[in-house]
Amino acid sequence: MKTGKEMREVGMIENAGVLCEEGNITWVGPMNKCEKELPAEIAEVDASGKVVLPGFVDSHTHMMFAGSRAHEFGLRAEGATYEQIAEQGGGILNTITHVRKAAKRELKRSTARSLLDLLRHGTTTVEIKSGYGLDMDSEIKMLEGINELAEEEIIGIVSTFIGAHAIPPEFKTNPQGYIDLIMQKMIPYVGKKRLAAFCDVFCEKGYFDLQQSELILSEAKKHGMALKLHAEELTPLGGAELAGRLGAASADHLEHITDKGIEALKTGGVVAALLPGVSLFLNHGYAPARKLIDAGVAVAIASDFNPGSCMSFSMPLMMTIACTQMRMTPEEAITAATLNGAAALNLSGSVGSIEVGKQADLVVANIPDYRYLAYHFGTNHISMTIKNGTILEL
Amino acid sequence: MKTGKEMREVGMIENAGVLCEEGNITWVGPMNKCEKELPAEIAEVDASGKVVLPGFVDSHTHMMFAGSRAHEFGLRAEGATYEQIAEQGGGILNTITHVRKAAKRELKRSTARSLLDLLRHGTTTVEIKSGYGLDMDSEIKMLEGINELAEEEIIGIVSTFIGAHAIPPEFKTNPQGYIDLIMQKMIPYVGKKRLAAFCDVFCEKGYFDLQQSELILSEAKKHGMALKLHAEELTPLGGAELAGRLGAASADHLEHITDKGIEALKTGGVVAALLPGVSLFLNHGYAPARKLIDAGVAVAIASDFNPGSCMSFSMPLMMTIACTQMRMTPEEAITAATLNGAAALNLSGSVGSIEVGKQADLVVANIPDYRYLAYHFGTNHISMTIKNGTILEL
Repeated sequence: MKTGKEMREVGMIENAGVLCEEGNITWVGPMNKCEKELPAEIAEVDASGKVVLPGFVDSHTHMMFAGSRAHEFGLRAEGATYEQIAEQGGGILNTITHVRKAAKRELKRSTARSLLDLLRHGTTTVEIKSGYGLDMDSEIKMLEGINELAEEEIIGIVSTFIGAHAIPPEFKTNPQGYIDLIMQKMIPYVGKKRLAAFCDVFCEKGYFDLQQSELILSEAKKHGMALKLHAEELTPLGGAELAGRLGAASADHLEHITDKGIEALKTGGVVAALLPGVSLFLNHGYAPARKLIDAGVAVAIASDFNPGSCMSFSMPLMMTIACTQMRMTPEEAITAATLNGAAALNLSGSVGSIEVGKQADLVVANIPDYRYLAYHFGTNHISMTIKNGTILEL
Repeated sequence: MKTGKEMREVGMIENAGVLCEEGNITWVGPMNKCEKELPAEIAEVDASGKVVLPGFVDSHTHMMFAGSRAHEFGLRAEGATYEQIAEQGGGILNTITHVRKAAKRELKRSTARSLLDLLRHGTTTVEIKSGYGLDMDSEIKMLEGINELAEEEIIGIVSTFIGAHAIPPEFKTNPQGYIDLIMQKMIPYVGKKRLAAFCDVFCEKGYFDLQQSELILSEAKKHGMALKLHAEELTPLGGAELAGRLGAASADHLEHITDKGIEALKTGGVVAALLPGVSLFLNHGYAPARKLIDAGVAVAIASDFNPGSCMSFSMPLMMTIACTQMRMTPEEAITAATLNGAAALNLSGSVGSIEVGKQADLVVANIPDYRYLAYHFGTNHISMTIKNGTILEL
């Protein structure tokens, strides 16, 4: 991962070539300097006049869901807040009702359709969270679905367990009962069956407080999961400090992070995964990206694609919002959407940059200059996506 | 055009059918109620499960340009303001240098390429301004190019003369000399040759003040042009009141409109053409859409597609920004992007809604619900565009 001024170095090579063999990158550099012996059978891609980038790594999504929350979108325009909608049975609970009813194959089918769209827009690795089931069977259904998609689909998928996404209605008067269920039943099962690479918690007022978050994440760690945390989104609870203390791979959201929180992320080597689309969608303020980068924290950006707080999977659009609203430079936005996204998923060694030894995950953008990805917004510039060295027909 | 609460009425019909003959709409209603005798030869479009809308009317663009301003986008991320960049020879003057050098056929070629993209994203009528030439020959070159495209291309094009877009460098010490040139040479020529339906002025501090704007627009009116005005974008100069007084079709931008300005637009029946993408791109605050609508002003939204202050032509994305940042409802955003856009171009009689007698300009969106157009953002949902009854191959 890159921090500080390094985030501005995108290492652009003019007239470059990339050699991919058996799914991996085996050479990269200026075309006229390639002295490698090329294999007899080779599929050549001409990207003249275009820009080739590493595939985007979207490190935070809730893209497996059912039902629609378009109605809530209208209500928010009329002045209702996200919190008010949640209190009236909308929000996460709305989606939970639909996901519990849905069969695993339905969830997989609609997610698979979205995954195709992600690939068309240049995302080659994506994290997908559970957390719309909130009972043993429904959480397992989601995680199994995500893992099956990871086997069946060509896009790279990382699975995250977030049973602690909200208190389900049946535990409304007994939240501790639900936390016990998570810690005593869900986490051991998810750990044993290796259903999730990460455990995440929505650490927020009205959801899970700091102490509960720590208990849940510590238990998950014992069962072999790496850690993430939804932190400081609506209120500064100290989630960033907790993420630092527990050695989480990333702390996500951070709209209300404090200076102490920033220090904790830096010291702990925790990636700050910022979600510009949520701030636009909910209009609730932006994370201090400039301050985080200047303080030396590795910043990633992700879509948070989900039906309630960011109905978009477009990583280039997240870059536009980051550049215009969060004062990130186009170069920082690219680093954040690729290499630092990979770091947020503990995948720095395999994806997120065009380097020898990494997976050949490349996108070709039909733009005259890499800055156009963020600059010329609201349209899809990706003309080709290559995953593991395979040119995809999309 | 629609105002007030009417803007929320999109008149959705479930299981609807539209009959188009010779480019026009001849029937619309619930499919099972159609008693019209259908012509023997008819091309049928099955839009089951999709949403059919009027094609978008983008009433404000500067989409004929040359050169790139991606570099300025990076500078702004690093903290430079639009005004600072303009002072350093960037901004509009940057584009002017390139447009003056470009041949008419080059300008037409790159604009035609963009027009295809607009159609793919559902825009069927677009206004295009001059204003990157700022000398007699270059302004005429632009206007001729725009008019030729209007003849050659299938998309509907409305031409606007905005010689008063900035003071060109050669008149820096003699702005009155440039205003004389506009009024004595440019306007009479443009009027005589009927090169522009509208005349527009950038009424702003450092550009054209209120009095200069009034002189130029009044002269243009005498020469048969309808009026528009870039008003109250960076400072509240009273442009809205001027637009009302002169009977302009629209006052555009309005980020800093005053209560008196709102009253003037209402009284004058002037459309408030808001540009949400500019506010996102420049991060300089949003026009008070809610206040304008509640006061009874007809609000339109447009892209302002241009290389310096909004490098996007996506009308659905403008709707998303309007809904999330300006508290417009999805229904109001649709009205603003269609019917009220048409009103801003004096085209209420022919485009902007699916009504008998209007041009058959229709878009088919692959979404389950019309709200998804604004709600599910950052991807193109338009699966078919029909212009003047012709199904386009795009």
